[in-house]
Amino acid sequence: MDFIINQEMLNDASSSLFYQEKEAFSGVNKIAQKVMHDLELVFGYAPKATADRQSLGKCAVLYGTVAHSPVLQELAEKRLIDLAWITGKREVYLFQVIDHPFAGVEKALVIAGSDKRGTIYGLFHLSELLGVSPLVDWSGVKPERKELFSLSGDLKYISKEPSVRFRGFFINDEWPAFGNWTMKNFGGFNAKMYEHVFELLLRLKGNYLWPAMWSARFSDEGPGLQNAELADEYGVVMGASHHEPCLRYGEEYKYLRGKDSIYGDAWNFQTNREGITTFWEDGLKRSGKFENVITVGMRGEQDTSIMGKDATLADNIAYLKDVIQTQNQLIQDHVNPNLSEAPRMLALYKEVEPFFYGDEDTPGLMGAEELRDVILMLCDDNHGNLRTLPTEEMRDHKGGYGMYYHFDYHGGPISYEWINSSYLPKVWEQMTLAYDFGVRDLWIVNVGDIATQEFPLSYFLDLAYDFEKWGTNAVNKTDMYTREWINRQFGGIFSDADKEKIFELLTGYTKIAHNRRPEHMNVNVYHPVNYKETDQTLQRIDYLLNSAEELYKKVNKADFSTYFSLVYYPAVGTLNVQKMWLLTGKNNYDARLGKMEANKLAEQIKACLRRDQELVEQYHTIDNGKWYGMGLSEHIGFVNWNEEGNKNPVVMNVWPANKPRLVVSVDGTKQHTEGPAWHNNTIYLNDFMRPDIKEASFTIASLSDKKAEYNITSNNTWLTCSKTSGSLDGVEKTKEVIHVNIDRGAMNGETEGSIVVEMSVGTCTLIVKVTQAEAEWSAYPNKTFIDTNGYISIEAEHYAFNKEAKNKDGNTNWFEVLEQYGKTLSGVKAFPTTDYFTPGEDAPYLEYHVVVPDAFDYEVELYMQPSNPVRNDGTLFCGVQVNEDKISKINVLPDGYRVDDENWANGVLDNIHKHRTRIQCKAGLNTLRIYPISPGFVLEKLVIYKEGKQPATSYLGPPETYYVGE
Amino acid sequence: MDFIINQEMLNDASSSLFYQEKEAFSGVNKIAQKVMHDLELVFGYAPKATADRQSLGKCAVLYGTVAHSPVLQELAEKRLIDLAWITGKREVYLFQVIDHPFAGVEKALVIAGSDKRGTIYGLFHLSELLGVSPLVDWSGVKPERKELFSLSGDLKYISKEPSVRFRGFFINDEWPAFGNWTMKNFGGFNAKMYEHVFELLLRLKGNYLWPAMWSARFSDEGPGLQNAELADEYGVVMGASHHEPCLRYGEEYKYLRGKDSIYGDAWNFQTNREGITTFWEDGLKRSGKFENVITVGMRGEQDTSIMGKDATLADNIAYLKDVIQTQNQLIQDHVNPNLSEAPRMLALYKEVEPFFYGDEDTPGLMGAEELRDVILMLCDDNHGNLRTLPTEEMRDHKGGYGMYYHFDYHGGPISYEWINSSYLPKVWEQMTLAYDFGVRDLWIVNVGDIATQEFPLSYFLDLAYDFEKWGTNAVNKTDMYTREWINRQFGGIFSDADKEKIFELLTGYTKIAHNRRPEHMNVNVYHPVNYKETDQTLQRIDYLLNSAEELYKKVNKADFSTYFSLVYYPAVGTLNVQKMWLLTGKNNYDARLGKMEANKLAEQIKACLRRDQELVEQYHTIDNGKWYGMGLSEHIGFVNWNEEGNKNPVVMNVWPANKPRLVVSVDGTKQHTEGPAWHNNTIYLNDFMRPDIKEASFTIASLSDKKAEYNITSNNTWLTCSKTSGSLDGVEKTKEVIHVNIDRGAMNGETEGSIVVEMSVGTCTLIVKVTQAEAEWSAYPNKTFIDTNGYISIEAEHYAFNKEAKNKDGNTNWFEVLEQYGKTLSGVKAFPTTDYFTPGEDAPYLEYHVVVPDAFDYEVELYMQPSNPVRNDGTLFCGVQVNEDKISKINVLPDGYRVDDENWANGVLDNIHKHRTRIQCKAGLNTLRIYPISPGFVLEKLVIYKEGKQPATSYLGPPETYYVGE
Repeated sequence: MDFIINQEMLNDASSSLFYQEKEAFSGVNKIAQKVMHDLELVFGYAPKATADRQSLGKCAVLYGTVAHSPVLQELAEKRLIDLAWITGKREVYLFQVIDHPFAGVEKALVIAGSDKRGTIYGLFHLSELLGVSPLVDWSGVKPERKELFSLSGDLKYISKEPSVRFRGFFINDEWPAFGNWTMKNFGGFNAKMYEHVFELLLRLKGNYLWPAMWSARFSDEGPGLQNAELADEYGVVMGASHHEPCLRYGEEYKYLRGKDSIYGDAWNFQTNREGITTFWEDGLKRSGKFENVITVGMRGEQDTSIMGKDATLADNIAYLKDVIQTQNQLIQDHVNPNLSEAPRMLALYKEVEPFFYGDEDTPGLMGAEELRDVILMLCDDNHGNLRTLPTEEMRDHKGGYGMYYHFDYHGGPISYEWINSSYLPKVWEQMTLAYDFGVRDLWIVNVGDIATQEFPLSYFLDLAYDFEKWGTNAVNKTDMYTREWINRQFGGIFSDADKEKIFELLTGYTKIAHNRRPEHMNVNVYHPVNYKETDQTLQRIDYLLNSAEELYKKVNKADFSTYFSLVYYPAVGTLNVQKMWLLTGKNNYDARLGKMEANKLAEQIKACLRRDQELVEQYHTIDNGKWYGMGLSEHIGFVNWNEEGNKNPVVMNVWPANKPRLVVSVDGTKQHTEGPAWHNNTIYLNDFMRPDIKEASFTIASLSDKKAEYNITSNNTWLTCSKTSGSLDGVEKTKEVIHVNIDRGAMNGETEGSIVVEMSVGTCTLIVKVTQAEAEWSAYPNKTFIDTNGYISIEAEHYAFNKEAKNKDGNTNWFEVLEQYGKTLSGVKAFPTTDYFTPGEDAPYLEYHVVVPDAFDYEVELYMQPSNPVRNDGTLFCGVQVNEDKISKINVLPDGYRVDDENWANGVLDNIHKHRTRIQCKAGLNTLRIYPISPGFVLEKLVIYKEGKQPATSYLGPPETYYVGE
Repeated sequence: MDFIINQEMLNDASSSLFYQEKEAFSGVNKIAQKVMHDLELVFGYAPKATADRQSLGKCAVLYGTVAHSPVLQELAEKRLIDLAWITGKREVYLFQVIDHPFAGVEKALVIAGSDKRGTIYGLFHLSELLGVSPLVDWSGVKPERKELFSLSGDLKYISKEPSVRFRGFFINDEWPAFGNWTMKNFGGFNAKMYEHVFELLLRLKGNYLWPAMWSARFSDEGPGLQNAELADEYGVVMGASHHEPCLRYGEEYKYLRGKDSIYGDAWNFQTNREGITTFWEDGLKRSGKFENVITVGMRGEQDTSIMGKDATLADNIAYLKDVIQTQNQLIQDHVNPNLSEAPRMLALYKEVEPFFYGDEDTPGLMGAEELRDVILMLCDDNHGNLRTLPTEEMRDHKGGYGMYYHFDYHGGPISYEWINSSYLPKVWEQMTLAYDFGVRDLWIVNVGDIATQEFPLSYFLDLAYDFEKWGTNAVNKTDMYTREWINRQFGGIFSDADKEKIFELLTGYTKIAHNRRPEHMNVNVYHPVNYKETDQTLQRIDYLLNSAEELYKKVNKADFSTYFSLVYYPAVGTLNVQKMWLLTGKNNYDARLGKMEANKLAEQIKACLRRDQELVEQYHTIDNGKWYGMGLSEHIGFVNWNEEGNKNPVVMNVWPANKPRLVVSVDGTKQHTEGPAWHNNTIYLNDFMRPDIKEASFTIASLSDKKAEYNITSNNTWLTCSKTSGSLDGVEKTKEVIHVNIDRGAMNGETEGSIVVEMSVGTCTLIVKVTQAEAEWSAYPNKTFIDTNGYISIEAEHYAFNKEAKNKDGNTNWFEVLEQYGKTLSGVKAFPTTDYFTPGEDAPYLEYHVVVPDAFDYEVELYMQPSNPVRNDGTLFCGVQVNEDKISKINVLPDGYRVDDENWANGVLDNIHKHRTRIQCKAGLNTLRIYPISPGFVLEKLVIYKEGKQPATSYLGPPETYYVGE
């Protein structure tokens, strides 16, 4: 017989479903209430809880925590459950259906936690099984209604210990968005608000939180200690950001300091040692009784550097050591005499990083006794790329390692705080790297205002909770994760086809943000015409926007707010801003050419600007202002690292020429001409130099608002134009795209044709150059790239061979294709991710085949994920080998590369590192092998061209060129 | 008793005023008819002419030409006149009142010409005395009505021989303007049209014409030979442009060539010697009977180079010599066996110039026997700056020299064909230089379509006719000329005050065009904010535009067309285009800062664009379409040397920021800030570092369309702001200029103050640095420039001393200030203009006094009229001396300078040459002496600054800085 819950049972006023013990943690009972509310949402009737076994119905839910639950004890003693499976484990629960736990109850679902959080996760597991989203409270996700729920009578499930010990998020940069939101909805940064945040965290299987701290005092504003008390009640481990030691939050000192303060009036451990020490001591006394990860170390106020510019490295290290010794002593005195039992954390962030590593002359803090049990928190570069990771010898550090990751950042080169712009494949790639490198004790992610980050945050915490399922071995599983996530939120709301649309939307908008975050967009990012990268991105955006609108019209009223906040607003908000900038690029370009089309684009840009304001307005008003404030961050046209001085796009207008002038341009290129008598009137249509291209196009556009006619002729019968004559009025009709089709079979050995466009003012000739696929090319193996138009562009996954290698222990080293990881297609990355490989020995390689016309010096430009070196040495090597030449070991980073320099800044904004290296090719077929050397090498694309003959500039790089077997 | 004409006499049907002989040249009689028509305009009654002495009244006009007039012969025999004064002279007339020439006539005005043109000029002299403008026919200028005209009874005036032998203009680049005009009004390039052109030429005292030739065939389209016959009848000497030899016009060969043509089918003297020779021969046979200056030499068709690129210099010279020998022989055979009596001209233009000079290895054509009596025509650089001039040894060339000057040009770097943009002081400076250098036989000026060029063309021809009056000795007389010219056109039309307005308009718009021609304007010329050069130029333009509108409203209907075509259209047309570009500079600059003001400017730009079209439209329709076509030349936004691809300005619009943001900018500088917390919020008001400045300003401007408030405070009582608080709405009110006044007396030793502007978003601090005039400065002599703000800028005329020198013959060499000649004030130039001076010996010098704070290396930047070297050596030297250091002889042109290179191109567009030289200054007072060396050195401005501390960029250069005794 199954364990059953149905509407009838719940509607039976005489019986209760949940057995509630007074011995249970109060927080556990509160969570049980939330689960009971989940049941109400599912069944339409609220279950009841009782402390009286007699009041229970035939089916009952018995929950409790090992050592805090007489009923569990009793069941264990009756051998109905075996607590040994979970006892002593971390955050584990037993989820078992048993028969007849005691009289009157036929079937019981036992949820037994190894500890408080184990029980809570177990309780929420029931909600999950009922189809309740972890976002049920936070985003108001409504579960699908059920009449009956059953669990197999022999169900016994023991959860795993979470992969990462402390897993959580950081509410940061809380003004203007989160701050206005909580002020309006809760009246402050208080427990009423944190109630929801804690619930969100726990339902997402997190256990750790850094609270808002730029203007808020977590331990004072609950009111009083209520925030901290509530966290403790729920088993939420509190942390504080990297620069807030000893359970004191950033704003506290500002609030308490003063001439007459016992804490003195200087955030300076040298000049105000006593005051600062007392400040820390009182913090620990106050909050040490709760579960915390205590930050140690010290930075300047408001996250600035701690000592003056003149201090030496040794000065700084000594200072920091002194600070930590003092803090350790205080923690022993007031929190736990056994320091190893008091979780502590030191952030190796910003200036602290050099103090940790030291230099040749000055030993750093690495290996210092003071830090033995301290979690060393590493960090990304604030833009989603990890920085230094523990070297092999560092990995046995007893305290373990943490990672501070960013989905939101307030800082250089440009902040991004408005909306989610993180892309799951990258989060996977980077965080699995962290885990592989032994960063397993603490994962914290900066989610800014939380709102719109629900999707990647879910992923981050699921990855941290169950690395076995989603981690390194789960290559290319983020799509699966995304579909599961969509099902959790929209299971009963949308059809499968519509959920697939949501899948496209979420992966689509984040991929476009992966290519460039919306705050980082400007008019000069994408090239307005080259390779049509702007037009193609616009097409993709319009496709996604249309899907979003379709669903917007379909979704029912009850689910509107959920759809809007989780999908529509972040997707449309992001895409609209991206679109606006792409249109601005086209507008500015066309305006400079005098095209009347520019005026139409100007109106479209203004529509996007209006749309942006409307979207925020709508976000702020739906659901009775539930999200009010969350859209307030500036997000257009940053000119500084922060919003200061940000600018809307400059919209350009043209005034019509006073003759009926037209201009012809070759699509995808900057070539254009009005066909004047004395200047350039010949342009080149080179698309057909790719043997696989059958259609190309050019555009005729108005420069005036006068009717202007054109005639198109060609002497080549093998060329067909979609129009042979027509006219533009420059008002309604400002351009005409002329499609040119080629009949290669009819060319009879010709290699060049021409098209003449006669216009009211001027005559333009398009020279059409053609390459035919040659019969002998079929002798080349598939994936042989042939240079037919001056360069070769290869998506990294289109190698001819992917060759594994064995390391000295006989294990395999290999490349994996990371699908959809690249800006234009995928990435390829070598595994194991922690290894340094030696080309020719244990390094796998990718082999590319390229055919070039001449023996010559070529450049090969590698496009790579902008990884930072995992060692503190500024290098990232790979190997390049052409034909039988020896393998060149090249550092793909510029000399002296460091995070925060200009190369780095361009890398994080562009989300690419490019490196050019010279190779010598022979005429005809060449093989090019790429070997990984340093960890972090992820190759996306290769572009090969004759020395000095760089292809036209673009943001995404030239699209892939022709290859055999395409 | 006086010679009298009055209405009564003219109204008397029984008597005639003019005595007309059948022996007179028919052209002279026709001109007399025009003069009689002038009288009708003046008196309201048409005078009559008669061949019958009996029909004459008491007063009669007797005109004739020596040797072609029985009556003159008779009067001379009667000793009433003395023809010896004029006989044998060139274009001279006697204008004398005599008593009783014969029975019945009491008083006669005798107009006796030494030759046909002498008589014509004499006849028109009567019109001039009657107050009839030379533009009476061409521009429809209506003379003031008179009732009575009298000449003193003892009047006897003998005109001078014109200073320059052949004086005329060239109708060129006749499409689209002149071509459409003549097609519509006359149906072709025919005698009906030339009738007016010849009359214009003769009334302006010219005698020489190059007809339209790009699409017209002067000798064919009269119809037939009528154009040439009419010219000959009027005594107009016909020439042809530099590339049309032997009385054949450019289009003729195109028209006559062909496979079966007797002239062959190649414009090539090598491959088609016979055909070309016949072509020339027939040209000479046809037109040699008329008065001509026959072009010799040969260029390629359509003004291109003659031989291929591979031809050597020697090849080219030999070819050209062969051509000229052939042509000379043809002229001897068919025009005049005495070559010295057949005026011939060879243009030393474009490629022919090197063939004339040759090089070290190859002697050029200079001194060749073939050229002995040939006028060698030199030319300007097409932009109003002369090129090489005859060296002293060349000046005795028997044929003499000519000058081809441009008021209109179709060619590089950018054409100017739309409207007059020539500035009389420059025409004076350049053409007097030509005359001084011995260029006195032929002056021809390219006037494009003639229309709008009437003002400078009058000047050019008056200068050529009477160099004694207007030439080298008439320094700074162009204003006087302008006033006289205005009186001639508007004598009875406008009041003196209004005529002064016209004076301001004519000098004003041409000065602005002197600074930059309208066709050469673009958005990047004037700096949009630095030194307020844009705003100040806009103010000047608006002042002039207002004057033009005032007069527009005042002028009566009858004179409207004259005012419109001679003043309003060229002035307003030019100024409107200039204004449009200046506004575009501001618009683009403001838009990039996000200022809402940009949107207002955008509307103003559009208004200018509309105005431009309306003006042309009006020009084309007034006076029944009299000027139809004359405004058709493109004139906005050239991107090539010709109009091809020209672009209207790109108008930029901003979208309001979504917060009430303001920005503060220091007027005249690029400094601006929104007063953000993290970025630059301090700017500097440095105007008061000039001790003579009492008021400065900054501007607060809206970045949004939201009401935004500001408060202005200062702790310094000696600073007063024009407002202390206010608000902008960003829609109606988008900016506020805050005037800051300083009370230097109240400063009590302070040297720096500050002003704080608190705004809705941000707080900006303006640091106000102040320099006080120091007591000891009064010890410096007047015109001592003191560096109080990092640089010194001196208008060249503000020297401390202007020192003359004596040459070895004891004659004085000296500097003259050329008033209003400079882009910002005047120019200074050394005289005699033909001399090379030796500094320290015979060179005059200008001494400037400058006080600098430190002993240091300084740069002195000389701003000079963009003169080309008068010798073919690419150099232009001057001397610079600091204190007692030795004089440096510096070439102010870049090494290898040549006309047509980039430096030259920038020079003609900017109308300035700048040269920077390093000098060493001591702290305190320094003297800087500038010596002329090469001819053509005209200094406008000096800017002095510490090495590496160049003042902010601008088009006009930094305005003059503080000096003692200002």
